[in-house]
Amino acid sequence: MKGLGVHTSLWAMEWTREGAETAVAEAQRYGVDFIEIALLDPPAVDAQHTRALLERTGMPAVCSLGLPPGSYASQDPEKAIAFLSLAVDKTIEIGGLALSGVTYGGIGERTGVPPTQGEVDNVARALEGAAAYAKSKGLDLGIEPVNRYENHIINTGQQAAEMIEKVGADNIFIHLDTYHTNIEEHGVANGILAAREHLRYIHMSESHRGVPGSGTCDWNEICGTLAAIGFDGGLALESFINLPPQIAAALSVWRPVADSADQVMQEGMPFLRNIARQYGLIS
Amino acid sequence: MKGLGVHTSLWAMEWTREGAETAVAEAQRYGVDFIEIALLDPPAVDAQHTRALLERTGMPAVCSLGLPPGSYASQDPEKAIAFLSLAVDKTIEIGGLALSGVTYGGIGERTGVPPTQGEVDNVARALEGAAAYAKSKGLDLGIEPVNRYENHIINTGQQAAEMIEKVGADNIFIHLDTYHTNIEEHGVANGILAAREHLRYIHMSESHRGVPGSGTCDWNEICGTLAAIGFDGGLALESFINLPPQIAAALSVWRPVADSADQVMQEGMPFLRNIARQYGLIS
Amino acid sequence: MKGLGVHTSLWAMEWTREGAETAVAEAQRYGVDFIEIALLDPPAVDAQHTRALLERTGMPAVCSLGLPPGSYASQDPEKAIAFLSLAVDKTIEIGGLALSGVTYGGIGERTGVPPTQGEVDNVARALEGAAAYAKSKGLDLGIEPVNRYENHIINTGQQAAEMIEKVGADNIFIHLDTYHTNIEEHGVANGILAAREHLRYIHMSESHRGVPGSGTCDWNEICGTLAAIGFDGGLALESFINLPPQIAAALSVWRPVADSADQVMQEGMPFLRNIARQYGLIS
Amino acid sequence: MKGLGVHTSLWAMEWTREGAETAVAEAQRYGVDFIEIALLDPPAVDAQHTRALLERTGMPAVCSLGLPPGSYASQDPEKAIAFLSLAVDKTIEIGGLALSGVTYGGIGERTGVPPTQGEVDNVARALEGAAAYAKSKGLDLGIEPVNRYENHIINTGQQAAEMIEKVGADNIFIHLDTYHTNIEEHGVANGILAAREHLRYIHMSESHRGVPGSGTCDWNEICGTLAAIGFDGGLALESFINLPPQIAAALSVWRPVADSADQVMQEGMPFLRNIARQYGLIS
Repeated sequence: MKGLGVHTSLWAMEWTREGAETAVAEAQRYGVDFIEIALLDPPAVDAQHTRALLERTGMPAVCSLGLPPGSYASQDPEKAIAFLSLAVDKTIEIGGLALSGVTYGGIGERTGVPPTQGEVDNVARALEGAAAYAKSKGLDLGIEPVNRYENHIINTGQQAAEMIEKVGADNIFIHLDTYHTNIEEHGVANGILAAREHLRYIHMSESHRGVPGSGTCDWNEICGTLAAIGFDGGLALESFINLPPQIAAALSVWRPVADSADQVMQEGMPFLRNIARQYGLIS
Repeated sequence: MKGLGVHTSLWAMEWTREGAETAVAEAQRYGVDFIEIALLDPPAVDAQHTRALLERTGMPAVCSLGLPPGSYASQDPEKAIAFLSLAVDKTIEIGGLALSGVTYGGIGERTGVPPTQGEVDNVARALEGAAAYAKSKGLDLGIEPVNRYENHIINTGQQAAEMIEKVGADNIFIHLDTYHTNIEEHGVANGILAAREHLRYIHMSESHRGVPGSGTCDWNEICGTLAAIGFDGGLALESFINLPPQIAAALSVWRPVADSADQVMQEGMPFLRNIARQYGLIS
Repeated sequence: MKGLGVHTSLWAMEWTREGAETAVAEAQRYGVDFIEIALLDPPAVDAQHTRALLERTGMPAVCSLGLPPGSYASQDPEKAIAFLSLAVDKTIEIGGLALSGVTYGGIGERTGVPPTQGEVDNVARALEGAAAYAKSKGLDLGIEPVNRYENHIINTGQQAAEMIEKVGADNIFIHLDTYHTNIEEHGVANGILAAREHLRYIHMSESHRGVPGSGTCDWNEICGTLAAIGFDGGLALESFINLPPQIAAALSVWRPVADSADQVMQEGMPFLRNIARQYGLIS
Repeated sequence: MKGLGVHTSLWAMEWTREGAETAVAEAQRYGVDFIEIALLDPPAVDAQHTRALLERTGMPAVCSLGLPPGSYASQDPEKAIAFLSLAVDKTIEIGGLALSGVTYGGIGERTGVPPTQGEVDNVARALEGAAAYAKSKGLDLGIEPVNRYENHIINTGQQAAEMIEKVGADNIFIHLDTYHTNIEEHGVANGILAAREHLRYIHMSESHRGVPGSGTCDWNEICGTLAAIGFDGGLALESFINLPPQIAAALSVWRPVADSADQVMQEGMPFLRNIARQYGLIS
């Protein structure tokens, strides 16, 4: 995970063979350094097809997911481990670099009250099991704090760092997302600082999830602090244009966040590339 | 509604007689220009007591609310009108200056899909009825766009302005909240510009709902644009320290957003006062 | 003066025939809406050649200057009027849309003490005379506040507005420059607000005079406030790549501010175009 | 040099006995952690009086200066060494913690052309000599990059770091100033990053040199990056209210930058304290 990549939801609503081909072709057309593939339903992915596609095009890929209802780590750690293990296997099969995202729970998971100690303990147990399995396969596992509305358990860099220390596995990393840090952190720099040594991946996602540069995120502060902590992981543009309805609902996306994928790539990608270069985050 | 006020949830979990006395005493101690009172359960408010308290202290008040489940305007406009009419009556009884907030729906109302035309029409019908009733009592009615997670119908200044034009009443105004604009607008200035002539009230709420000045809101842009459109309404600091559980759940507040109400007032209020003065928004 | 233009110093060190041809060709190649031509030595400009070039290419032009030593308005208003009259004539001859810049003094003019009343009165007298002459020719005259180091008389939007009110001519306008407002104003919005009804032209110049988007200017606040005041004048990218030595000295440019003119146009121009469109300043 | 201090020019136009007493009394009244004393004319300072005053009040002090015409390091390194040695002696005599500022040249020194290799070599020679002398007395020597208008030799963190590497002394540190970085750096974070391991002192000075928080400096980016590089030096508020005329001229201060020293301390100091605490820069 190096350079400036793109989350493929920009081009493909679902990771079918057709979706995969479209997404990789677009990623190549725009010269991105890697792609992120949503593994929302791991068994449904044709691993052989994706692996061949990635190898043929030389396109590196990171996989990501959120846990489905029924397999939330806070409620049923064993089911979460089982789901994550399937996703680890699929990631290995397609040749993915890492598995990340809301690996600790559901996108949209909330109980209406703050996280209980039991929930936190369950999440730790699930991550411990999943990290051990991933390690046995040589894979790293990321955890992505999301905002208070999308999950009630891990919202900040600080909470993610505490979870990693609690779990104690050395193949778990933090994956921040600027859309979420814009809501949750006491200054985005503080979220990056709290994640610091564990931070290996970041979603460069605008405050409204549209074209980077057109919202309220403070990109100078983001890139300046990333440079200051010596961040050398992957930067992934994320903008939600083509969402399957269940994901749109979980993310509360009710309006188009941009005119088109091309607008995001033609306006937002150069913006991110220039500012990331300015701070030496990419070459 | 003029000057720099404070939402009383900072001091009182519920607007009981005791809560009211505490809140008004604190508001006086900090020299605020007005208070905002949450009318979540209008019948429960002792109007005579509040009116006497406000008169004795000379403290102006604005009332606000969200509609309760069962009375969502999008689903049952008549029930929404009935609830809003009760709230209008209570606002008049306590001597309030206006009734505002999520007067068009529930805090936390979402259907999982974008708003339908029928829902929007229902909201317009409810606001038309409520505005007519408020007008008969000499009261103005505000609508506050909130972020995508708290309601799926009105998230932006633009949507609020369109709703007001659809309704056509001259006593409806827009009430923005910087916490929400930080998430929803294509640059906070665009939200203020879209609301423009209808904008008469604004929550000065930090990006994480804690101490103003300690988050990611761009206060220079907010205050500069407010000055540029000639805004002369009320600015209300809002930070959620003491929330009743049902509201904390609706707002997804899982952690304390600040150390104490005193921290918010001693750090955040001077910050807002200085920057509002710098741009001529208060004297 | 509409749309997004470019100051031609980016391409031509001096406005010779060769410089003019290079600059206009580059401006066309990048599709800019207008150019700004520095009239530092009006008699040296081949008006017929420039006029033909502008007509042939359909490229609108604005002229700008600073007064030369010996003709500072603060010291010798008559000489300043004479110089400005020559520049007005030349602007008319080449078909320029307006004459602007530091029309009230020298770039680098400082006495070591604050402006005296006599100096201010002299500047007013010179502008009155020059504006009257420009009006007789149907031309408008701009004044550009510059930072404290480049001139000691007009540094802020407020001072420029006061000067215009003192002079009383209706064909004088304010021309701001974001590089200068970044140093001088109490929040850039305040400079734009002070200039407000007189503001008709603005240099979009980064904090270090290099590639727009790569410095410390708050472009959201700049564009948001311009939109809020209903600005509909010209936006001109200004970056100093090719400066004649005497100008480099007056502007204290000791290092290259960018790698090349192409870098400025390929990184900075799309940045400005996107953000100006986002706030509706250009179509 | 730890904590949040204040440059005493806020209270005393010159460091006479009377000025010193006023400044230290005000610094105590506002509870600052240390003061900065301008040693513009070292022989004129009554060292015994200042030392006694600092000891009696327990107020730590840092000394700073710019070289006078005739002793510019770029032109006459020996004279610069002689002047700096005098200043080192005086700093030791009063019990100062370090000597910093424009120790490499004059405030307002410019030749009209970029720095020559000879000038740079002379500066290095002067700093080498002065640092050796300071070291023999156990004192550290700071160099403060200033903007292009105030000196043509060292404007950026990068240039300062290069100079320190060229000189090779281990008791020279970098002293940044946010007023200058706001003009010179490609994003303030880049200036802090370039200075990085050498950075031990920073002027927290607003973009217009008035009340911190009321200008265009991006304080979140400044404090976030300082925290990210592990900065643990002194933060000094600097605002120029009471300037002797020759300094006002060198700094091109033509208008009052704030209403009063009390305004700076009552509005700006709490602003800096809150944001520095938010990022863990002070306790």
